[in-house]
Order: sequence, then structure tokens, then C-alpha cells
Amino acid sequence: MASVEPSIVDPSLRDQLDIVIPTIRNLDFLEMWRPFFENYHLIIVQDGDPSKTINVPEGFDYELYNRNDINRILGPKASCISFKDSACRCFGYMVSKKKYIFTIDDDCFVAKDPTGKDINALEQHIKNLLTPSSPFFFNTLYDPYREGADFVRGYPFSLREGAPTAVSHGLWLNIPDYDAPTQLVKPAERNKRYVDAVMTIPKGTLFPMCGMNLAFNKDLIGPAMYFGLMGDGQPIGRYDDMWAGWCIKVICDHLGLGVKTGLPYIWHSKASNPFVNLKKEYKGIFWQEEIIPFFQQVVLPKEALTVEQCYLELSKHVKEKLSTIDPYFTKLSEAMVTWIEAWGELNAPDSKAADYKPSRSGTRTAK
Amino acid sequence: MASVEPSIVDPSLRDQLDIVIPTIRNLDFLEMWRPFFENYHLIIVQDGDPSKTINVPEGFDYELYNRNDINRILGPKASCISFKDSACRCFGYMVSKKKYIFTIDDDCFVAKDPTGKDINALEQHIKNLLTPSSPFFFNTLYDPYREGADFVRGYPFSLREGAPTAVSHGLWLNIPDYDAPTQLVKPAERNKRYVDAVMTIPKGTLFPMCGMNLAFNKDLIGPAMYFGLMGDGQPIGRYDDMWAGWCIKVICDHLGLGVKTGLPYIWHSKASNPFVNLKKEYKGIFWQEEIIPFFQQVVLPKEALTVEQCYLELSKHVKEKLSTIDPYFTKLSEAMVTWIEAWGELNAPDSKAADYKPSRSGTRTAK
Repeated sequence: MASVEPSIVDPSLRDQLDIVIPTIRNLDFLEMWRPFFENYHLIIVQDGDPSKTINVPEGFDYELYNRNDINRILGPKASCISFKDSACRCFGYMVSKKKYIFTIDDDCFVAKDPTGKDINALEQHIKNLLTPSSPFFFNTLYDPYREGADFVRGYPFSLREGAPTAVSHGLWLNIPDYDAPTQLVKPAERNKRYVDAVMTIPKGTLFPMCGMNLAFNKDLIGPAMYFGLMGDGQPIGRYDDMWAGWCIKVICDHLGLGVKTGLPYIWHSKASNPFVNLKKEYKGIFWQEEIIPFFQQVVLPKEALTVEQCYLELSKHVKEKLSTIDPYFTKLSEAMVTWIEAWGELNAPDSKAADYKPSRSGTRTAK
Repeated sequence: MASVEPSIVDPSLRDQLDIVIPTIRNLDFLEMWRPFFENYHLIIVQDGDPSKTINVPEGFDYELYNRNDINRILGPKASCISFKDSACRCFGYMVSKKKYIFTIDDDCFVAKDPTGKDINALEQHIKNLLTPSSPFFFNTLYDPYREGADFVRGYPFSLREGAPTAVSHGLWLNIPDYDAPTQLVKPAERNKRYVDAVMTIPKGTLFPMCGMNLAFNKDLIGPAMYFGLMGDGQPIGRYDDMWAGWCIKVICDHLGLGVKTGLPYIWHSKASNPFVNLKKEYKGIFWQEEIIPFFQQVVLPKEALTVEQCYLELSKHVKEKLSTIDPYFTKLSEAMVTWIEAWGELNAPDSKAADYKPSRSGTRTAK
């Protein structure tokens, strides 16, 4: 392991990390995660009908927000939070008071490593976030900060300090994260390959970020983790995490931050319906052919030094360059601004925390 | 596996691939490779004292060139081929008449996969070379052309055809390819992690290419696979493969070709002496701090459409920009031109093959 400055943080980040879960159903999946999640605080964002009662297994420390809460807390700015789409999860990022966020879908279970041992996904994400990234030059032996690895011959010494890691993107065993056309063509394909690697996505390279199993440093990149306008009333779905991924990568590159992908794996239990997915995705499938070159080419001004500044600059570019594709992008660019305003209000040092209490909460079981 | 156009080539590439081995000693290591190499033609480049007889195990089909052969065949242009350094291997690339080259060091043995099975490194390199690369966008499930994998959601459909693969860079179990300082600091570190992945190094990203376990398509990138001036009479060693790696990556990016890294692993048996290595490397260690930014910034003209044209353009940039570091780079830039001239002579359709017979050869054992 390449030498890393000792950190004063508790390596479990117990009081510094929230787990954000978007859901429309009972959270029985938490039972399997109990040994790993029970000491953390959960932020549950209930999507869909707010009158429905979501069952949360006993003993978890949580707060639950439904649509009524979001509307009450954000007022007119609630328009930037998607409804009937897992994009609503980003509301959880906004209300969290912690430095680190882990977000996971409710159809994701504990995976096993090749030795049959349960994978503590959260622990691996924390390792990823607490060690630097290497975005400026490629290391062929993968993450040089990992035990038993280092920078290989020819890696410039001046770059070995790396960059602070803003995002840790985990992967999925069993059901791979395919688009609807690929799901339709390969309904039986399962991901069985456990690749024992974490790597930094190089500077200047975009990637498809999946929100199923994702962690990030809120202080470093939080305001850019906006999952866009998806689902109810929008012409598109299933591009929420992709949108966030393009935005965060461009901003991380601009600010000299790192994005890692690879371990940890979760077990993705069931494929979503490809016909439903196709309906949600089809505009995205052709829009992305223009959106990705846009993100590959966009240049943020040197003066943009904070994530908020970068994000507002990006929103201007979106309005200017992408609105020609569809009026949706004008609306999206405006929602990006609303998101930053709402973020600023909820995350201001003097924000009235009492104003955004959840409608439900639970506390940890005493031991 | 993402759909790939059916290829008409024999997937073993038996008559289309040469194995190039630089050496100064008896090639007993070939015994272990016999099941995998016996049907291929070997090009052995004997470094150091040409009067020494190198033992080649019986039954291999090979030709062996020593320094006298190189001098005889290239005449004054032999100055571009290093002496007393494994950089001499690139002479083997030049005399090969095949489309594909696999080069391996003589201290590399057959590695085992996690199930204990011997790894056929050559077969994996061939798979890597015969399937496309994905340099224009990152695929989080690694090589999408591999069995059981594909492009993930959000990967632009227009980019799924990928790019022709020019280079396949394999890795090493046991002794990792570390520089002298890292060897000194971590003499006991061994690479025990088998990472079951092949990936494309994204466009615009440089990497440290190691020549120990490397395959490439000579038609696509051969003329750029020059291992520079190293060893005897030169101020630097152990940067031969690094130099080639920077050059080929810049040219692959310019020409829209792919470079893969990851599988296959070989078993690297013994660490070279770190004190000797430090002496060879120390200038490279500080020079690379300027060389890498140079390669990150160099832009080849649109008019450069062939590898030769790109390489000659690069040589001009090297002379202009790197000669300020050390007069060595003037010499190197001139050697780059000499290399291309020699390459052209030996690889011209009407080249007199008879003029460059090896001093020794062997034939396959009849079965």
C-alpha cells in the first residue's frame, strides 16, 4: 500500500455517514444488512403514495421522509425532487447532516466473496473514500493504496500523493445493470464474475454511474449529486444516476477530485421489467448520443472553485447547449439551479433544522 | 458478450503470430511454456556477447539473432537498437513477418488461475487482440466483449462497436513490476491478487507499459513499438518499455486504436537487483516528471494518418521539447527516425528477406 497520511477519522465513520434508501415498499431487505447497517443512521425517502405505511424492521436508527415531508420542507423548491422515480433519493443527501453518504437500492442484498464470506459493502466503500484516488495517470495494478499493491514502475512520483476521493462506485453480482435493449436481448445474463479490484476512473473519462450501490463524500461533491428530473410528469426515467454521474465526473475533473469504481459488490436480486424500462429509457437512449459529447467537451471556468459554483456554471451550459435537443433540458437546467438553492438553505450553518423533521423516525435498539 | 463481427482468422493465430524473447542466458524457461508455445515461431534476440551460445530447448521452431546479426542486417542503422538492455527485443518486432507479436521475458513462468489451472497467457492475449477495445467511454463491468459481460446501462450505443485493439498488456503475479525505490522500500512485497479483468485504457490516459508480458498487432501499431536507446553507452535503462508505452498510447489515441490491460497474468519469478536498477533508472525517475506532461500535451497533426507518419512527427516534438532536459533526447529523437527507416527497409514488400537470415535457427519437432 502506498503511504497515506494517517487520518484522524474513525475508520468505521459511524457518526459521520448516513445510509440513504429510496423505496416504495416494506424494507425487509434491511434484515440481511442488519450486521452491517445497525450502527448507522438511515435516511429513508419514501417514494409514491405518502399515505402508505412503509414497514422498517425494528431496531434501526432511521428517519423517513415521504412526499408530504419533501413538499413541506422545500416548499416551491420541492419541484426539483423527482416523484415516482428513485431519483427522489437525492432529497436524502440534502437533509443528511453527515460528511459521507452511502446509498443503496432496496432490491440489493449482501453478496458473497469468492471464499463464500459475506461482503461488508459499506466497509469497502469507506476504505475507498478514505484513501486517495489516482486520476492523473493509470496504475496497471489497480488501486495503489490498497494492501499488497503500490504504484508500478514508471508511475510519476510527483503524482503518487493522488487526489482526494469524492465518489466510490460499487458493482453488482447477479443481475447486471443493463439498459432495456440489452435486458431484452439477454434476459438470462447474470454477472458471476467477481473482479477483485478498485480503480480510479481517469481524469477526462466519463462513466455510467449507477445509483444502486454508491457512496460519496458530501463535503467534497454533495451539491453535484443531483439526480435530475425523472419519473412522474417527466419524459424520461432511469437516467437519474447517469445524469448525476456525468455532472459529478466533470466537476471532479475540474476540481482535482477522484472517482473510484469496482469493489464492493452487492447482490442485485431482481431485474426490473425491460418493457417498462424501455418506455422510461427510450428518449435517453438517443438523447445520450448528444449529451455525452456535450459533457466530454464542456469546460468549466477557472473561477469556479466550489462545487456549487461549478454546478451553476454547468446548468448554464445545459440550458445553452442541450435545450436544442428538447425543451426538457431547459426545465432540467432550471431544476439544477433550484436544487442548489434548496441545498444551500438546508445545508446553511444556521438552517432551522427543526423545520425539516421527518414524519417518522426510529431509534437504535439498546444493546 | 457484446456482439462482434465474426472474424475469419484462426483464433489460435498459429501462423500469424511470433513470440519475441530477448535474452542473455539459456532458455530453459521455455520448457514450462512448451504446451503453449510449441506450435508458434520464436524470434530470440540474444543480447550481450554474441560469441556466447544460448541453449534453446529442443523442438521449438525458432530463429536467433545476436548482435553480429543485428549489425550485419541493419548496417549503420543498427545504432538504433540498444545493446546490453532488453530494449534490444524490438529488433525482433522488426524482422518478424507476422501480423501479431507476443513478447515475454525469460524470467516469466506460467501462472496459475485461482482454481489452480495453468494460465495460457498467449490465448488470452489473442482474445484481447481479436476483440475490440472501448477507449471512448468507460465500461464499469470491464471488457464488454468478454463472455458473460456487456456494456452497462448508459453506455452510448454509437460507441459500442469500439475500436480495433492494437495492444494487449498483461500483468504479473508474484514479483510486481516496481521501480528501484519501491523495491528497496518493500523488498518482500508480492503480488498475490488475481484480478479477473481486462479493460481498455481510456483515450487520453497514459499508462506505464511493461514489456515483460505484452502482445500487439504489428500491422496496427508495430512501427511505434520502438524501445528506445537504453543500456550500453546510454545514460538510462529500464525505461525502454515505458518509452514505447507513452509513444504507442499517444499514437493509438490519435488513430482511434485501443490498448487493453489486465489478463493474462504470468508468474514473474525473480526481482532484479534494486541497487543495479536504481543506477539504471535514476535519471528516468526525474526525467519522467517532464516527459509525461510532454506526452500528455503533445498533439499530432491531423495529416498524420499512418503509424510511421505519427512516429516521425513525435520524433520532431521530442527533439524540440525534450532536448532541453538532456542532449540524450536529441540522440533519441534521431534514433526514432533511424528506427522508422530501418523498419521501412525490413518491412517493405520487396525487402530482401535473404539478407537478414538469423545466425541460428531450429525447427519444430515432428509429431
